[in-house]
Amino acid sequence: MHTASIISIGDEILRGRIVDTNFAWLSRKLFLMGIDVVHHSTIPDKEEWVCAAFGDAVHRTGIVFSTGGLGPTPDDATRKGLTRFLGREMVYNARIAQDIREFFQKRGLEMPENNLLQAYLPEGAVPMENSEGTAPGIFLRTESGKFIFLLPGPPGEMKAVFRQAEMILKNELQLIPPNIKIFKTIGVPESLLEEWISEKTIPDDVGVAYYPSLRGVDIFLSAREKTSLETAAVDIRGTIQDYVYFEDDEEITIESVVGDLLRERGKKVAVAESCTGGMLASRIVDISGSSDYFLGGVVSYSNSAKVKILGVWDKDIEKYGAVSPQVARQMAFGVREKFNADCSIGITGIAGPTGGTKEKPVGLVYIAFSDKDDTLVRRYNFVGGREAVRTRSATAALNILWVNLKFGDLKKYPFQDGGEWV
Amino acid sequence: MHTASIISIGDEILRGRIVDTNFAWLSRKLFLMGIDVVHHSTIPDKEEWVCAAFGDAVHRTGIVFSTGGLGPTPDDATRKGLTRFLGREMVYNARIAQDIREFFQKRGLEMPENNLLQAYLPEGAVPMENSEGTAPGIFLRTESGKFIFLLPGPPGEMKAVFRQAEMILKNELQLIPPNIKIFKTIGVPESLLEEWISEKTIPDDVGVAYYPSLRGVDIFLSAREKTSLETAAVDIRGTIQDYVYFEDDEEITIESVVGDLLRERGKKVAVAESCTGGMLASRIVDISGSSDYFLGGVVSYSNSAKVKILGVWDKDIEKYGAVSPQVARQMAFGVREKFNADCSIGITGIAGPTGGTKEKPVGLVYIAFSDKDDTLVRRYNFVGGREAVRTRSATAALNILWVNLKFGDLKKYPFQDGGEWV
Repeated sequence: MHTASIISIGDEILRGRIVDTNFAWLSRKLFLMGIDVVHHSTIPDKEEWVCAAFGDAVHRTGIVFSTGGLGPTPDDATRKGLTRFLGREMVYNARIAQDIREFFQKRGLEMPENNLLQAYLPEGAVPMENSEGTAPGIFLRTESGKFIFLLPGPPGEMKAVFRQAEMILKNELQLIPPNIKIFKTIGVPESLLEEWISEKTIPDDVGVAYYPSLRGVDIFLSAREKTSLETAAVDIRGTIQDYVYFEDDEEITIESVVGDLLRERGKKVAVAESCTGGMLASRIVDISGSSDYFLGGVVSYSNSAKVKILGVWDKDIEKYGAVSPQVARQMAFGVREKFNADCSIGITGIAGPTGGTKEKPVGLVYIAFSDKDDTLVRRYNFVGGREAVRTRSATAALNILWVNLKFGDLKKYPFQDGGEWV
Repeated sequence: MHTASIISIGDEILRGRIVDTNFAWLSRKLFLMGIDVVHHSTIPDKEEWVCAAFGDAVHRTGIVFSTGGLGPTPDDATRKGLTRFLGREMVYNARIAQDIREFFQKRGLEMPENNLLQAYLPEGAVPMENSEGTAPGIFLRTESGKFIFLLPGPPGEMKAVFRQAEMILKNELQLIPPNIKIFKTIGVPESLLEEWISEKTIPDDVGVAYYPSLRGVDIFLSAREKTSLETAAVDIRGTIQDYVYFEDDEEITIESVVGDLLRERGKKVAVAESCTGGMLASRIVDISGSSDYFLGGVVSYSNSAKVKILGVWDKDIEKYGAVSPQVARQMAFGVREKFNADCSIGITGIAGPTGGTKEKPVGLVYIAFSDKDDTLVRRYNFVGGREAVRTRSATAALNILWVNLKFGDLKKYPFQDGGEWV
């Protein structure tokens, strides 16, 4: 199997000013292509460090990626560091200079002179087009045939440039993607999935890995033999299929699966949110094209908004409290009526850290689902801080929508999401 | 200066399944305490790797942190790997076992037997309480006096346990926090800040670093001498003060500053969002206590919602389009009326990647601000993908709110946010 190193460049990462999401994204992409990332280091944005890191990485692996340090300021030392390591000269690339000028012209912006620094490349390097910004990526091969790819640091630009690196590697190398099976699950805890799957007889060469997040648990099976992978996959699918919302493409989210189902069924949804405060709507809108099925929502953070916009009875807020099954129900019902939607969600709860009481502790959340047939409410006691409670709530709501669209009758579905109908 | 190593443990990080946010958080915290992180590695969740990584790290630095691998499954190899490295025995800690049992009892959950694995520690280790989960942190000193801290992987738990590590280090070591000055800015591009600041005469020992994100640019000054830091800070503040929303505490966000100003002024806000789809509301609600000033919002993703809920004129949508200054204005006005708010925001735009035209390209966003005196609209052409355009839009809206609350007259403020009044 081919191996690769990744070098993350920038003081801002080493000092913890920004989170290095590029490393994770690249590792995953490379792994699925059949390239194993065996070495990762984070280094400061200094020419001599960059030079040393490339030396080290080229020594270890046949493929080296770096991210960051390609910007237009003198701080950005990646080009210089690599050039020094290679013992080559920097050369001016007139076409890149032209591209950079056009990037600014198109946007009606004035180009800072510094940006032309980005047109200098090590001799023999090939620029890789950056559709998202001004810093081109850089590709070159060393005398010993090793592949070096310099990607820009901003994630959108890094991803755009990576596509070209991917093509180059696929053309030049015999890549054998690993035997991988992915189950993306929602609404069931990792511990329960593990318990169920541990009761199965899985072939010896199959590894099972669980990747839980606040948005669900992804299960990755890997195996030396394709046949044992398939045997295991069939067996495991039989056990967990009620909770699997997608297989094999890990970038598909529950938001997009719910969206596709809504579009297929020709249904429109609206949401009413209190403690999640727009997070559910925002997750739905993350998906391009969501206007096909998402009518909108109300963030009824105040009681007056619940009453005035959604038609919740103020007497019920007084009697049962804003965090109650009654209010969740009326929020879902109200927003469905108001937006003339086919189905809807209402969420009210206590995200914390303050506002909890003995009867209504932090983490208590009611989620209602409403359609023309019925309005149902589930009660949850979510664990975690404010952000976790809010994210879990939005995820639980997406789960309910998915179950309704996929399986129909909510009451018959074997929920394992920690909630109960009230 | 004291130095530290950080070991991130887990296949899920190395394979890119999850993003390692712990490393950044820890590096930042340690740096501000006066501890420099000089080494970071990511390793798989395997006993022998953990053992080797601790050996390597203890060799390099006097302080070693690990994150991850403390969970209840046999996969979680951190305790075992450390015990092997130390050449000690694992011992059962009855108090931890009791804490774990109580954690489940309190939540009315059944405890999986596996969880008791978490009660085994290397001999001589001291558990650190985990208020957010079942995996206690672990602290110990090696025979040679080095500090080792094992923190759980889930970020909320890691942070909770870190507080105890922080106290231990502060008690045991003479820490000298670095001379640091932080300016948190919003609504001005990095390149302009750099240009302004480069025109100043800054003392030689002062370093200036820029950390741009979609939410603003943080500027960090560091210096050997406190006096030169202060001189530089005064000089730089004079130039950029119109854009500085907070100084010195980097965890304070524009959301919380806007929130505090609203609370002080006794003002209530409501928002109407189209392309941001609830993201602005969700960012406001990120702040605990936001119910003091946030009434709520409408995600008017469909035209019908704009018309029916917010009272936008359907004739204007027809004539000018949903993405137009007219509609932004009516959204802001409508939501303010509807929620009976003192001020409000309306956002409509094209987040992309589809939906752009020659006249209305992707990234075109109108943001309106409304209060009892006036309703004003700014036009932006944001660069980047869907997520970037939406985040920049929400940030620009928060900037407008902040300017209004802090400086009053929006028309007089020297905006540098790339937008213009229309």
